[in-house]
Amino acid sequence: MDATPSRSRGAEHRPTAATTRPGLMMDFPLTTGQFFWRMRHVNPDSCIFSVRDAEGTFDTHTFAEVAGRSLRLAAALDRRGIRPGDCVASFAWNSVEHMETYLGVMGMGTVLHTINLRIHDDQIAWTARHAGDRALIVDDSLAPQIFTLLDQMPDVEFVVVIGSGDVPGIDRPIFRYDELIAEEVGDYAFPEFDERSAAALCYTSGTTGDPKGVLYSHRSIVLHALTMVGGDVFGIRRHDVVLAAVSLFHAMGWGLPFISILTGSNLVMPGRFLQPASLARTIRDHGITWSSGVPTIWMDLLNHLDEHKEDDRRWDTLSSLRKLLLGGTQVPRDLITRMHDFDVEVVSGWGMTETYPGAAVTVVDPSETHEQSLPKRVRGGKVSPLYEVRLVDDQGVILPHDGEAHGEIEVRGPMVASHYYGLEPEEVAGKFRDGWLRTGDIATIDREGWITLTDRAKDMIKSGGEWISSVDLEVALQDHPDVNEVAVVGRPDERWTERPHAFIVSPKDLDVDGLRKHLLSRVPKWWVPETFERLDSIPRSTTGKFDKKALRARLKEINDKTGIEK
Amino acid sequence: MDATPSRSRGAEHRPTAATTRPGLMMDFPLTTGQFFWRMRHVNPDSCIFSVRDAEGTFDTHTFAEVAGRSLRLAAALDRRGIRPGDCVASFAWNSVEHMETYLGVMGMGTVLHTINLRIHDDQIAWTARHAGDRALIVDDSLAPQIFTLLDQMPDVEFVVVIGSGDVPGIDRPIFRYDELIAEEVGDYAFPEFDERSAAALCYTSGTTGDPKGVLYSHRSIVLHALTMVGGDVFGIRRHDVVLAAVSLFHAMGWGLPFISILTGSNLVMPGRFLQPASLARTIRDHGITWSSGVPTIWMDLLNHLDEHKEDDRRWDTLSSLRKLLLGGTQVPRDLITRMHDFDVEVVSGWGMTETYPGAAVTVVDPSETHEQSLPKRVRGGKVSPLYEVRLVDDQGVILPHDGEAHGEIEVRGPMVASHYYGLEPEEVAGKFRDGWLRTGDIATIDREGWITLTDRAKDMIKSGGEWISSVDLEVALQDHPDVNEVAVVGRPDERWTERPHAFIVSPKDLDVDGLRKHLLSRVPKWWVPETFERLDSIPRSTTGKFDKKALRARLKEINDKTGIEK
Repeated sequence: MDATPSRSRGAEHRPTAATTRPGLMMDFPLTTGQFFWRMRHVNPDSCIFSVRDAEGTFDTHTFAEVAGRSLRLAAALDRRGIRPGDCVASFAWNSVEHMETYLGVMGMGTVLHTINLRIHDDQIAWTARHAGDRALIVDDSLAPQIFTLLDQMPDVEFVVVIGSGDVPGIDRPIFRYDELIAEEVGDYAFPEFDERSAAALCYTSGTTGDPKGVLYSHRSIVLHALTMVGGDVFGIRRHDVVLAAVSLFHAMGWGLPFISILTGSNLVMPGRFLQPASLARTIRDHGITWSSGVPTIWMDLLNHLDEHKEDDRRWDTLSSLRKLLLGGTQVPRDLITRMHDFDVEVVSGWGMTETYPGAAVTVVDPSETHEQSLPKRVRGGKVSPLYEVRLVDDQGVILPHDGEAHGEIEVRGPMVASHYYGLEPEEVAGKFRDGWLRTGDIATIDREGWITLTDRAKDMIKSGGEWISSVDLEVALQDHPDVNEVAVVGRPDERWTERPHAFIVSPKDLDVDGLRKHLLSRVPKWWVPETFERLDSIPRSTTGKFDKKALRARLKEINDKTGIEK
Repeated sequence: MDATPSRSRGAEHRPTAATTRPGLMMDFPLTTGQFFWRMRHVNPDSCIFSVRDAEGTFDTHTFAEVAGRSLRLAAALDRRGIRPGDCVASFAWNSVEHMETYLGVMGMGTVLHTINLRIHDDQIAWTARHAGDRALIVDDSLAPQIFTLLDQMPDVEFVVVIGSGDVPGIDRPIFRYDELIAEEVGDYAFPEFDERSAAALCYTSGTTGDPKGVLYSHRSIVLHALTMVGGDVFGIRRHDVVLAAVSLFHAMGWGLPFISILTGSNLVMPGRFLQPASLARTIRDHGITWSSGVPTIWMDLLNHLDEHKEDDRRWDTLSSLRKLLLGGTQVPRDLITRMHDFDVEVVSGWGMTETYPGAAVTVVDPSETHEQSLPKRVRGGKVSPLYEVRLVDDQGVILPHDGEAHGEIEVRGPMVASHYYGLEPEEVAGKFRDGWLRTGDIATIDREGWITLTDRAKDMIKSGGEWISSVDLEVALQDHPDVNEVAVVGRPDERWTERPHAFIVSPKDLDVDGLRKHLLSRVPKWWVPETFERLDSIPRSTTGKFDKKALRARLKEINDKTGIEK
């Protein structure tokens, strides 16, 4: 079978011929202005519920109000000299103000740089400087942290503080968000601009080197929201109540702000309160029907509910929830099954900052039983509309989509990054090939476009000249009753180059013989690790994924100490 | 409330500033090539079932096969001199070959002109000449009809006949579809072109003047399919079985071929066999879950099932069906309720050739009962994503979206025609205003973007200086138990200018007093018609709508004869 796309399209996709004639449809740009129109004229009464405190108090804001306030924010920034093409940074949790910042800043043709709250201070300053952020919109609670970094952000001319909490003094003007909005009378109108204009900038927290900036266009934001609304993708509808349990500073909050506007669903902004007790209360109080995020917070929620079995509200908690889209890492089978018992459909999505989330999503076949569908739902899914993928081996040979061949996924399409912001072509050469983005994810793809992730390229373990998938080992170990969480990394080994080493979070001491026996029926014998180690918790990166870099460092430290391996 | 869009966008939507910076996403064109990739690499095993005969025999074709054959058709046309930008016509029922013609002709950058089978011979020849069709792809059963018109189609260089039936001899080469495909070896690849290239041409069967051509772009086709996949719009999913009960020569078959490819649903092509018995058999045999069309065929089906109550299969017939999207005219309440009894959700859609179907679609609120939702579901719906609408009175004043004000709907967006093919600007001046398309549909719009159609502008009845809605009268009369079908038109009247006249299809003689009494509780007293007339059937236009022009002509004839009105 020929698994490679057969269209003769190069990297640039220029029209080949002046002989095609243009269609006579309106030349109407795909911009966030279309979301703005919809908020005012189609779903003005849909609501955003925004958390106010740790006690679970929420403010209610209609879409019409949010649209009006977005426009006033833009007017206020415009009045202070911010222009189309400039960068404005946000440093904030999920809140209605952050959502207004999305709409207002992008709507005026300015680029919103959503700074990741969880990266190191050095990187925060570095990205703000690299982006050339001219203004900063920050939560009052986060002001003390970022204000100490302002010396390293020379382009920031003024700061807008969300909330009324005290903040330290700085050498630049500080405006209060609510006062800025209140001052405007609403005579401002968003300008027109091309749909290929930049709308937002997100930096990936790379494991090596400096962060890399993905510069999203308006066109790609609209196409992503439209695509994700599909019933087999995110499947959000008008009468859903969506919990934005993904930070707005991660890959455009997975597009949820825009999808919510497109459909008119209600949207709940939980701030930083995603701990099990808060999460349970938020779901109950708002009747959440749809949510997303990394598996950990949902596993923690289930454990919390288990620990409070005597409380009748446990069953009520999840009664409104119908669908969970999880990503960032493989989804534990146990989580899928336990959610299934609550009648919650768990699907997993694959994507990255460079592609938006949802480039592939699990499609559940209603004719399959839960047990039949389970293996497919752990990781990966079917390629979503407008994305094209191919599989390439480490020699650059294109592999068949036969569900057997393992290779790196390469992806292209109108929602895929073509470059990184501010880098020279030679600096990004290894990330792109012939117009395709190299994802660094190793997978199989079957003839029905189903991607099954094997590993990150850098997390594959090379043992005796063959590859071992750390993810396959993790999935197999997760099925063991004593295993709460597991991460496998390569341990340097003189004889085999590398051998797998399993870090396990368990309620009891590890029964290594039992674990090895468990694995023997599930993976090839030579994959079974010799070494296991119990941890209280597995370190995670800023995006909630296992921090394998930290685990490898720990392993090296132990090896160095014990002298097993220099 | 300010009901007008507040963005300051003019008709042309040119970027205002070189100060915006371009985003760094791939410049990947939205063309039918993306559907082609999806057929081969994501849903190769989904099927098209294509009718072969009146006995209900269907052929099965996988998406992979259809993609391959589309490419070969393109190769065959290319070999015979057809080039990007040329027009190729189809004159065919719904079949797998017609679908391949869609993909092949559009994929090669050529424009597919889908000739409406139901227009007059003169108009068929006129549109083919106007489009400059260079080749014609025709069903064998339809060849005798169109071959007599070839003298009036000077640009047609050759004809491709679908099927193996005998056809008359002509003065131009005839190729058999299957033979053309079989000759190609598959070394052809679709060319690259701009997403704004023309893909297809549909002529509206205007009630006055010559037909007008809507020239669809590739971009608009992709955006339409993406938008309609939304759960609150068409809501088609991977495991649906879609019956294409709308002709492929009507507004791109409502986009169903493309939506089906996008989702991977199975697609059933029923040819011309939509009579109740055939329709029932097709639904049963294929387990149809989703369909669409004009209300008549579905009302006929229900009546047919009622007449065969003794047959147990009646209940089975609709057991698989979950959703019907109806359009073209208001949907009888009785049809919605009877389908509801079979657990089928009926939604109505609004749109036109110039906007694609689905510019507004009924969104059913799951918290409402059937009775509560019924009034809204009869006609109109909520504005779909990427469409913007406004309401304008006959003086050009923009009206509020308050659910009360009646005006003409104007619409704009990337799936809306900006012009008609081959006409001079002055010839289309009355159809567009400031970058908006004037639809000729009279409606109210409420603050939630819900369009309730009142009438076609030309079907409003002017009586005593005030307007009467013929559609409101029809909806009210449809609730009467003796009324099967009803059409109301304006009858010339010396005193009042016009008075409404009701044509009614009924199983019994009309009880005029009873009908008037029925209406008195439902519409203003002065709306109640003085004159009623029983018909065996109401004449319909080629698109299945009531032919009010014919009804008015009939009325005039009667008036002329009786001398009531000169």
